[in-house]
Amino acid sequence: MSDQTAATRSATSVSIVAYNDGRPEPRFDEIAKEEPLQIRLATRSHRRDVAVTMRTPGNDFELAAGFLFSEGIIRSRSDLDNVSYCIDREIDPEQRYNIVNVELHGDAVPELERLERHFAIGSACGVCGKARLEGLKMRGVSRIESSVTVSAETVLALPERLREEQRGFAFTGGLHASALFDAAGTLEAIREDVGRHNAMDKLIGWGLLNDWLPFSNRIALVSGRSSFEIVQKAAVAGIPIVCSVSAPSSLAIETAQAFNVTLVGFLRGRRFNIYTGASRFV
Amino acid sequence: MSDQTAATRSATSVSIVAYNDGRPEPRFDEIAKEEPLQIRLATRSHRRDVAVTMRTPGNDFELAAGFLFSEGIIRSRSDLDNVSYCIDREIDPEQRYNIVNVELHGDAVPELERLERHFAIGSACGVCGKARLEGLKMRGVSRIESSVTVSAETVLALPERLREEQRGFAFTGGLHASALFDAAGTLEAIREDVGRHNAMDKLIGWGLLNDWLPFSNRIALVSGRSSFEIVQKAAVAGIPIVCSVSAPSSLAIETAQAFNVTLVGFLRGRRFNIYTGASRFV
Repeated sequence: MSDQTAATRSATSVSIVAYNDGRPEPRFDEIAKEEPLQIRLATRSHRRDVAVTMRTPGNDFELAAGFLFSEGIIRSRSDLDNVSYCIDREIDPEQRYNIVNVELHGDAVPELERLERHFAIGSACGVCGKARLEGLKMRGVSRIESSVTVSAETVLALPERLREEQRGFAFTGGLHASALFDAAGTLEAIREDVGRHNAMDKLIGWGLLNDWLPFSNRIALVSGRSSFEIVQKAAVAGIPIVCSVSAPSSLAIETAQAFNVTLVGFLRGRRFNIYTGASRFV
Repeated sequence: MSDQTAATRSATSVSIVAYNDGRPEPRFDEIAKEEPLQIRLATRSHRRDVAVTMRTPGNDFELAAGFLFSEGIIRSRSDLDNVSYCIDREIDPEQRYNIVNVELHGDAVPELERLERHFAIGSACGVCGKARLEGLKMRGVSRIESSVTVSAETVLALPERLREEQRGFAFTGGLHASALFDAAGTLEAIREDVGRHNAMDKLIGWGLLNDWLPFSNRIALVSGRSSFEIVQKAAVAGIPIVCSVSAPSSLAIETAQAFNVTLVGFLRGRRFNIYTGASRFV
């Protein structure tokens, strides 16, 4: 399982007109690439497209695996037999890198059907944030029991570490990032994407493909805001502490409370806010 | 057609711990609300759920109408018979404001079916940005022929106008905004949401429900980045000039080129970049 590297495919150069205080100047600008990725699921008995996401090419296998895991369609590395780009003859060669085939292990099929039933039940509960949280619990997502602690100084140092490593953003200014740190603030991985959720899915997929999940005792830092989906994905991956440089939403806070995730926001300069789980701070 | 006002429902207060240079202090913080909205379509012959979006409550009818319009499911105000919150007896009262029923005019049904066929054809073209653009053309979205012109000074003044009017953001720091201006830079409308796409759909839905589309000779300003979907929605609504305070993606630029949209990015201070359609600048 190897895919094209992000370095060669995440950015492209375009010619622009740059206005600076009224003076127009032609120049070249580096742009974050955005292309659809279709995630296709194959089991012994059937094959189907499960999602199309607009993403920045690179780390596509991680993205597919992370998406399937955080949505509850797979539960562990052992559910996967193979992950590959589509090489069907009828597919235009330039599109082959936009379709990822995920082959499930034979035994994973009944599990998939069970989860589909659960999705349907979750949906019957109604349309509101509370029903979303109930749906996650019914999928088997449980409260994070990690007893990890972290210091304020460790958390304050994270954004600078993220900026140092955010290569795609430095070029384009147009990529979100998700990064994983240990409790001492050492960076373990960073993933970038035009989509905030995709950056998180790539990070989780990296953990899944290497069989390193759950991410116990780890800290995630996201470059944008914390929405419901970001905190949901973190909870599914077992991450006890989620930080963002910007604001959380109401449902992100409720989700963090429900799954015992420590949620930090507005992490900038010498300040941050703790929205949930302040007891993990020493 | 009236819905609850954004003012009362877009934010909520939570108790937090604020760290400032190492000192923890309990205080209250205003948080942007995030709740699912289900968009339900009803015609004479059938009824179905078309989408669930995570959104900030408020302007929900605009959001539903704008989403359906920018996705090509409705073509004009006259396709709508009624827009209302779900009042089915079996729905829990607290969830009623999370489901919007859109009743289509009887004659709109065949049109809907034709468009579904078109979606299927577009999908058969394959999975890549080019296929996405072809799909839009097949839906009948055409190049914007507006001969509107704009000055650099007008464009430079837009972000300050946006900030002045971005009330939800001022409270919470967690809301995206989309605003519409005339060619002289006068603000006509602004909509906010935790989701960038939703803010744009609300703006377009406001235009649709008032029968003011297409937004010819107008300028849109979005608070985040310009993705494919943002430019796509602008093209469908006929907006000739789209500005953002941050970066565009590669596919956003290709979409702007294909539909003759002037695309401006990194609009900050006294600078901006023109990615496409520089000829509209005087």
